Amino acid sequence: EMNVAFLGTGSGYPTPCRGASALAIRYEGDVWLIDCGEGTQTQIMKLKTIRPGQISKIFITHLHGDHMFGLPGLLCTISMALKTVSNLKLVEIYGPLGLRRFLREALNLSRSVLTFKYVVHEIVPNRIQYDGWKPGDPDWNIEEGFGHAIFYDEVMKCWPLCSNKNMTVVAGGLKHRIPSFGFVFTECDKPGKLNNAKLIEYGVPKGPLFGRIKNGEEITLEDGRILKPEDFVGPVQSGKKVAVLQDTCDSWHMREICNNCTLLIHEATNENCQQDRCIANGHSTPAMVAQFANAIGAQKIVLTHVSQRYKHPLTHDVEPDDQTTEILETETRTDFSGPVIAAYDGLVVNVNKKV
Amino acid sequence: EMNVAFLGTGSGYPTPCRGASALAIRYEGDVWLIDCGEGTQTQIMKLKTIRPGQISKIFITHLHGDHMFGLPGLLCTISMALKTVSNLKLVEIYGPLGLRRFLREALNLSRSVLTFKYVVHEIVPNRIQYDGWKPGDPDWNIEEGFGHAIFYDEVMKCWPLCSNKNMTVVAGGLKHRIPSFGFVFTECDKPGKLNNAKLIEYGVPKGPLFGRIKNGEEITLEDGRILKPEDFVGPVQSGKKVAVLQDTCDSWHMREICNNCTLLIHEATNENCQQDRCIANGHSTPAMVAQFANAIGAQKIVLTHVSQRYKHPLTHDVEPDDQTTEILETETRTDFSGPVIAAYDGLVVNVNKKV
Repeated sequence: EMNVAFLGTGSGYPTPCRGASALAIRYEGDVWLIDCGEGTQTQIMKLKTIRPGQISKIFITHLHGDHMFGLPGLLCTISMALKTVSNLKLVEIYGPLGLRRFLREALNLSRSVLTFKYVVHEIVPNRIQYDGWKPGDPDWNIEEGFGHAIFYDEVMKCWPLCSNKNMTVVAGGLKHRIPSFGFVFTECDKPGKLNNAKLIEYGVPKGPLFGRIKNGEEITLEDGRILKPEDFVGPVQSGKKVAVLQDTCDSWHMREICNNCTLLIHEATNENCQQDRCIANGHSTPAMVAQFANAIGAQKIVLTHVSQRYKHPLTHDVEPDDQTTEILETETRTDFSGPVIAAYDGLVVNVNKKV
Repeated sequence: EMNVAFLGTGSGYPTPCRGASALAIRYEGDVWLIDCGEGTQTQIMKLKTIRPGQISKIFITHLHGDHMFGLPGLLCTISMALKTVSNLKLVEIYGPLGLRRFLREALNLSRSVLTFKYVVHEIVPNRIQYDGWKPGDPDWNIEEGFGHAIFYDEVMKCWPLCSNKNMTVVAGGLKHRIPSFGFVFTECDKPGKLNNAKLIEYGVPKGPLFGRIKNGEEITLEDGRILKPEDFVGPVQSGKKVAVLQDTCDSWHMREICNNCTLLIHEATNENCQQDRCIANGHSTPAMVAQFANAIGAQKIVLTHVSQRYKHPLTHDVEPDDQTTEILETETRTDFSGPVIAAYDGLVVNVNKKV
């Protein structure tokens, strides 16, 4: 089961009702955090959704404070939670060029000696995203490993970040006031199911032949009959795809790599009537999200990074005159026919099920 | 009225029940923040004790993350709250050498353009506090003014920080794992009350003579009688004194400047039986606090920076087997006869009244 836990769904700054940006993708025992605004470690404890020690990868979309000021503190708390030094624990951090220096400064100055290793892989922005970005490179924390710089791949049309046996992660460029990245998590395809009963019916003895035909091999039985794998193996099960697009006023550079995504998590800071000011601040409206979702054939949408102005009926005290996230959902549904939900702190979405 | 609002009273890291270190002193319309752990801005909103925009001075005791990781985010939120650029608003920040660079790094990297001016006055540690402390000095945020370096004053036996018509603030050195400072807030003495009725009785006409005698001047009436001010002016009203001593395992360097304090706010991370480990980590026990309080003649004590292990009956769900802050209060009372209270998030202490 792959699911997404929303830890902070607010825009700009944290409040007691809605934290600064942070969400976690959980799949096959891995916990991967996307963004880490101030107070994310407290949200994790409060919502009891994950344990900090489980986090193995952290992806930072961009370097605005509401997306990363919680990172030094989170690492310190993971460190204290581990208690004893662990050479096995490694936290890999992916984020825009400059993040490594910030973490080094914060951890050095606070003399935070971590009990685990961490490494920062920096995503190098494209010229179109930002000119004149010049972060430096001071001494580093002894617990920090050697991260690599990740450049844009012209062929793949993305920044390839990492992959394991279950999942591949790539970044795409988003238009915002500073370099901002969207992340696409693609589950690996799973081979089709083998029809054991049919093989037995055909007189195939249980054993290695089963494995060979499942692996796509044509096999010849002793009596000369030839069995083709497509007759005994079901269709390949396509992996799920989750796209996380935080701060942006234009997602179109990510259109190709987001194609056919199962779940689109997209920022929607303000409602449609605020479009001009919203775009000027580098943000999106529901209509923009719906248009993008239709273009990429997204199956369902979760709206997040919502202006603190829009209260969520489940987590706020809503007065009759208050604006709520229902406005954002309704406006999205006007242009998009699939399921839509506005995130709140504590929401857990199962990627494999309907919203 | 002078009062102290406790925003975060925990040790090491924030939890949903107890935030990382932060407290505010309020007096005559000023709001001065001491320490700013991660999540302080959220605590301010949650506890509704102060408005972020009221804060005019911030004092950071030392550079451990649980005392300062909330500072960049707090400044950004104040900035957003002000909405329009204000040339009148100035936030003065006092903290150990290195704080200026950290803030510059965090604000520069996050491209946070503030709507107000701020300035960092750095306290330069003594050699006895730390050897080999070498923070650098990168470019700064255009909204940052020119702060000064504050060196130890051998005559006054303290670092003189600032004063206004109501209050003087000095820092003293605390022993900890990194340079740590305690802050002493001393209200200015107020002149004694003029006994108007007695003057009238003596036939003094209302007018300038009243002011002259109040200012300590001897006056001669027309009939030749000489009036001495001590006969008509009450005793000088001593100002209150609040000492805030966060992380330390030895406060004795501050003994003189804390003398006769009205309110001693002192860390008490662990109970007495943990003394060895507690001191090894640079922290204090109730017995150590009580001994210091007696030596300086403190009138009352608030314990703070409590290990998250000790639950507070007012703000936690306490199970029968849980350790509570009552242990710390009881142990302090064994050696100190004045009022003692363990702080919790949201506690407001009126300095002029008994605890």
